[in-house]
Amino acid sequence: MTAPGWLDDVAFDDRGLVPVIAQDAATSRVLMVAWASREALAETLATGRAVYWSRSRARLWRKGEESGHVQVVREVRLDCDGDVVLYVVEQQGGVACHTGRASCFFRRLENGRWAITDPVLEDPELVYRK
Amino acid sequence: MTAPGWLDDVAFDDRGLVPVIAQDAATSRVLMVAWASREALAETLATGRAVYWSRSRARLWRKGEESGHVQVVREVRLDCDGDVVLYVVEQQGGVACHTGRASCFFRRLENGRWAITDPVLEDPELVYRK
Repeated sequence: MTAPGWLDDVAFDDRGLVPVIAQDAATSRVLMVAWASREALAETLATGRAVYWSRSRARLWRKGEESGHVQVVREVRLDCDGDVVLYVVEQQGGVACHTGRASCFFRRLENGRWAITDPVLEDPELVYRK
Repeated sequence: MTAPGWLDDVAFDDRGLVPVIAQDAATSRVLMVAWASREALAETLATGRAVYWSRSRARLWRKGEESGHVQVVREVRLDCDGDVVLYVVEQQGGVACHTGRASCFFRRLENGRWAITDPVLEDPELVYRK
């Protein structure tokens, strides 16, 4: 079996990884940024669920495998240089961040300090104890 | 003069850089990803115009300095790990990509190949000859 040609257009770094932005299909918010390997991208396309590469655990990370916060992938996009991927996703449970918030980008710069703009929707201790 | 405290919450990498996502305030599209140094972030806040660090030119890159495609920054956000920044911008001229398209993410995966979804709005050769 030959590798899918579309993967050859992705410019993986010297660790074999590419950064992936996940954007919410419903709200258009940027939810998170993580990494993907070739295998993660291939599995994302095959399953329609967002798969990343966890650097800390050094293995495939099927988003939601612990938290239940699966991301159903509606679009996969690639930037002009081929070195950043964008997943447009339906975020199950409405929580993308491990802190229990909708988005990882929950801090906004206001008057020279980071203000938290998003409430905690789910207690992360309960989510990851499931 | 002491450094602004908000910059200390940004987790710059070992080159002193942090990736920055630019998102369009009007359309919510993800426009591009580039890098910023401490100085680039500080100047962005001070001027309200998106400033990046150009790795190829090894200097500050005031977006639009050549192309005219200035980005007026409406929000600056930081992710949970502090290692990705988000600029929410008004894209002057409606073109963020050096290829003359609205967004750098102009390729979408369709039936196992990258399909171009965005027209070229401006001839890049003319833009960069200005």
